[in-house]
Amino acid sequence: MERFMRMALKMAELGRGYVSPNPLVGAVIAQGERIVGVGYHRRYGDKHAEVRALEDAGESARGGTMYVTLEPHNFHGHQPPCTEAIIRAGIKKVIVGELDPNPKVKGRGVRRLKEAGIEVVVGVLREEVRKQNESFFTFHEKGRPFVALKMALSADGRLADTHGHSRWITGPEARRKVHILRSYHDAILVGAGTVRADDPLLTVRLVFTERQPLRVVVSRSGKIPCNARIFSGDVPTLLLSVGNVPCDFPEGVEVERFSGDVWGILKALYRRGITSLLVEGGGEIFTVFLESVVDRIYLFMAPKFLGGKSGPFKKILPVSSPMEFLVEDVEKVGEDVLIHLVPPSKMEREST
Amino acid sequence: MERFMRMALKMAELGRGYVSPNPLVGAVIAQGERIVGVGYHRRYGDKHAEVRALEDAGESARGGTMYVTLEPHNFHGHQPPCTEAIIRAGIKKVIVGELDPNPKVKGRGVRRLKEAGIEVVVGVLREEVRKQNESFFTFHEKGRPFVALKMALSADGRLADTHGHSRWITGPEARRKVHILRSYHDAILVGAGTVRADDPLLTVRLVFTERQPLRVVVSRSGKIPCNARIFSGDVPTLLLSVGNVPCDFPEGVEVERFSGDVWGILKALYRRGITSLLVEGGGEIFTVFLESVVDRIYLFMAPKFLGGKSGPFKKILPVSSPMEFLVEDVEKVGEDVLIHLVPPSKMEREST
Repeated sequence: MERFMRMALKMAELGRGYVSPNPLVGAVIAQGERIVGVGYHRRYGDKHAEVRALEDAGESARGGTMYVTLEPHNFHGHQPPCTEAIIRAGIKKVIVGELDPNPKVKGRGVRRLKEAGIEVVVGVLREEVRKQNESFFTFHEKGRPFVALKMALSADGRLADTHGHSRWITGPEARRKVHILRSYHDAILVGAGTVRADDPLLTVRLVFTERQPLRVVVSRSGKIPCNARIFSGDVPTLLLSVGNVPCDFPEGVEVERFSGDVWGILKALYRRGITSLLVEGGGEIFTVFLESVVDRIYLFMAPKFLGGKSGPFKKILPVSSPMEFLVEDVEKVGEDVLIHLVPPSKMEREST
Repeated sequence: MERFMRMALKMAELGRGYVSPNPLVGAVIAQGERIVGVGYHRRYGDKHAEVRALEDAGESARGGTMYVTLEPHNFHGHQPPCTEAIIRAGIKKVIVGELDPNPKVKGRGVRRLKEAGIEVVVGVLREEVRKQNESFFTFHEKGRPFVALKMALSADGRLADTHGHSRWITGPEARRKVHILRSYHDAILVGAGTVRADDPLLTVRLVFTERQPLRVVVSRSGKIPCNARIFSGDVPTLLLSVGNVPCDFPEGVEVERFSGDVWGILKALYRRGITSLLVEGGGEIFTVFLESVVDRIYLFMAPKFLGGKSGPFKKILPVSSPMEFLVEDVEKVGEDVLIHLVPPSKMEREST
């Protein structure tokens, strides 16, 4: 059973960057050892993986087994319920990776299939499925977006030189990789200080994307660079500010007051249906997230020494009790190194 | 020809940590495609690779071809000249990776073999041979030890917490790896500030070693912790000091005045036949080496954030002209990451 579920996972992965806020889903239909249909969710609003696989299989689906990474849904949304299509096609058995955490679905899809006389198994490669859709599960189970930090540091841990210049610490391939990461997230966040220092666009430009993530600027000091490029209104932008906003922004820029802490940010984004957030700096913003909630860190390390004092963590801890993470993966990206860090609790959960 | 030379390189590698200040050398004797003898230099003062391979081959060596990573020597030292043993054994052809850079040998071994009517080819896998013996080549060609820095940094680039405590930023597997690295070097160096802060032993303890590297303490300020453990005299120790040394050290601790700069350190070590040096800190010492001469950096990065100001580079550079290196390799070592950095010039040389 794992073999076809692993194929379905690989199919699902092809949708990354295209389906959010929907989950990545892949499906394989087999008659015994023979695959008769495959499908994945390609694009937000488009047909679901199960229907794609059924269409691919045609009449060969009858009496077959469907392997689908996530529980088929049982309600009318953008798409008609997949459960009905599965029943109609005469599928005999459905192997599900994990239940859909969306309360509108959770368990109901499986119940509907069973009521129709279909044999259902749940939980094959469950942890892989959960990891593939970590944003989607975090959003529905924890009621907040998945939070990833992207840091670009010199070998001696500097975010910028003493003039505040950070362009460019990392090389072109790392920067391209950052644009890919942006395209995978629903929103990108920076502090107003970074907007003042770098005047970044925070759009996806170096790679193809179907949609631009929401740009989020957080101001806790009240000093807002009203004329920054990010506030040009060409891409949806949200300014979260503790104080009054004296700017006259074009349409496309939304302003909201917030409490000033990380949970206030996450609440505002959750309400907007943002399932994943990429935090890009600067040091003050990294620090408040590190102290409250971080699900993953993409740490790009450039092989160079800059000196100075700018760093991604503004608090001071003793070596006996640092802010600890676990290295999930490490890779070369062009001339730089990318280290994937996850919180210790996360690895523990995933290894159970 | 490359196939057997590659085998000879692998044989040679087995001697790492045991042969210095001699080079690593491996030898393979073949009759056509058939290997009839192999050998490597196992231990300083012990038989050379060529002789080991000849003994292994016995009478089968006659008329065969010898693949040897480094030019056979032609003088009487600890061991009789390998050239004579090769000639006596009736070897018909010798393939040499690279000439021995030691002026007592360079080219003379090859000349002696040719005079005896043996066909000689030089330069097969030359760059691999040079890299395998980078300390040995640096010592003889540049007249100084090969200089490697070992840094253990937090993810935000800190050498220690704000109390100056650095034990332990990295985990047990990284620390064991450091002891392996120590065993590969002829000398280990720290600044007197690190001795004051950490009181380290700087010996090889966590892995087996045949000999303890020379411990070197550099004092530029004149503040010398006379009672530090490193000055207990149990392992050869050298104190290089700019000023007077008011301590009453036991035998085994040598004191020498030096000019205060890196070249003064390297000259003192070269005179003692030290072919490779591992610099272990602290930040001031790293900085002076980074500014003058570094052949390799072993950067251990622990996945934790500490905050504060301590860093491995005390100068301040603009992001447009940082102190740059190239990532040669990156690997997970236990819970930490080890990044191998080399100067840009080095990679260029090696890729030609």
